[in-house]
Amino acid sequence: MSASRAAKPKASSPTRERVLDTSLRLFNEQGVQHVTTNHIAEEAGISPGNLYYHFRHKEDIVVALYRRYEVRAASVMNVPDASQVSIDDLWLLVHMAFEAIQEYSFLFRDLSDLNAEYAALRQRFVANLEHSIARTEAYLMHLATDGQLDATAMEVKALALNMVLVSTYWLALQGVRNHKPHPGGASDADLSRGVFQVLSLVIPYLEGPARLAMRREARRYAAA
Amino acid sequence: MSASRAAKPKASSPTRERVLDTSLRLFNEQGVQHVTTNHIAEEAGISPGNLYYHFRHKEDIVVALYRRYEVRAASVMNVPDASQVSIDDLWLLVHMAFEAIQEYSFLFRDLSDLNAEYAALRQRFVANLEHSIARTEAYLMHLATDGQLDATAMEVKALALNMVLVSTYWLALQGVRNHKPHPGGASDADLSRGVFQVLSLVIPYLEGPARLAMRREARRYAAA
Repeated sequence: MSASRAAKPKASSPTRERVLDTSLRLFNEQGVQHVTTNHIAEEAGISPGNLYYHFRHKEDIVVALYRRYEVRAASVMNVPDASQVSIDDLWLLVHMAFEAIQEYSFLFRDLSDLNAEYAALRQRFVANLEHSIARTEAYLMHLATDGQLDATAMEVKALALNMVLVSTYWLALQGVRNHKPHPGGASDADLSRGVFQVLSLVIPYLEGPARLAMRREARRYAAA
Repeated sequence: MSASRAAKPKASSPTRERVLDTSLRLFNEQGVQHVTTNHIAEEAGISPGNLYYHFRHKEDIVVALYRRYEVRAASVMNVPDASQVSIDDLWLLVHMAFEAIQEYSFLFRDLSDLNAEYAALRQRFVANLEHSIARTEAYLMHLATDGQLDATAMEVKALALNMVLVSTYWLALQGVRNHKPHPGGASDADLSRGVFQVLSLVIPYLEGPARLAMRREARRYAAA
């Protein structure tokens, strides 16, 4: 996705990738604060010294995984031409965004903590968050201008922010409700209900046949 | 609020209350995981032994503060007669709910962590969360039946859940966005915008004059 990143030294070493895969699994299962670099080295089958060669601190692993998430999320949301996007695509976009969040769920479970602890993560995370809000807003404004959405500019702004908020925290909320503290264990049903919750934010702004069609689709997700 | 609770030994001791006040301030400012019981004792001006007499573990303090929050929140939301509640009251209810959340903001910042770590907290927190969702749903259903809200039963269900989700995580999100890791420092503007975000979930379900009136009120909050 980013040639300059891929060209960095060590960036494509198989060991480095294995460390990241292992870390992702452990972080999702146990939470970042309960996983040490020694634990990661052991699980990845390498020496602590070898791990240290690739990543000096746990923070570096967290940030590297966040970059992976960014690339993953960007491939979902970077629609080439907003003017080609219709309301029907929204289900798919939100569903794919939730799949990316589920894959990197540790980032969303421990959001406040991780961002407070790791400055390098916070900078990227917030920039990406603001970008998501702005992109969602632009997409909704396009739908409104196109007559697919009956909302004022102020309502579009609030709606975009609520869509990002619900997407960001849905799996964390379900984790607390279902006593799955590590949302790596979030079920497909949780994911479908998350898509439903986000889309239900948009439904009341639709009119006529679009609203009926969205309600039908919503029932399908709600029943998942 | 609960006579049986107030009658418990030690429940109304001035030292106990001072420990809780001090803990609340420190937890809000620094996060639970960065505050030790020795730190609390020192700030409250008592010996560690005296603190231990009132609270064996930090968890006991967290749970006691959560009970305080529950009483505070219940006084906001326990409307005596739902049939008397109109859509105009919603602004006030949501605003007061946010004030309670701001006062006990540490609970909402570290939600997933605290609930994963302290089983006694989780049980109460989740019960109260489900109760809030059910109560919000009942209130919205009443508005719908009364013709103040144009929403199906499925939409009311999704709306209630989104209202609780946005209320629960709004200050945490703003904390990350504004780099205020401890939302005890949340500004009144953050709080007003939170009220606006929650109410903006309801606006599209209103019709005619109620919608116009809500939009006017929303602008007032958005400009705060």
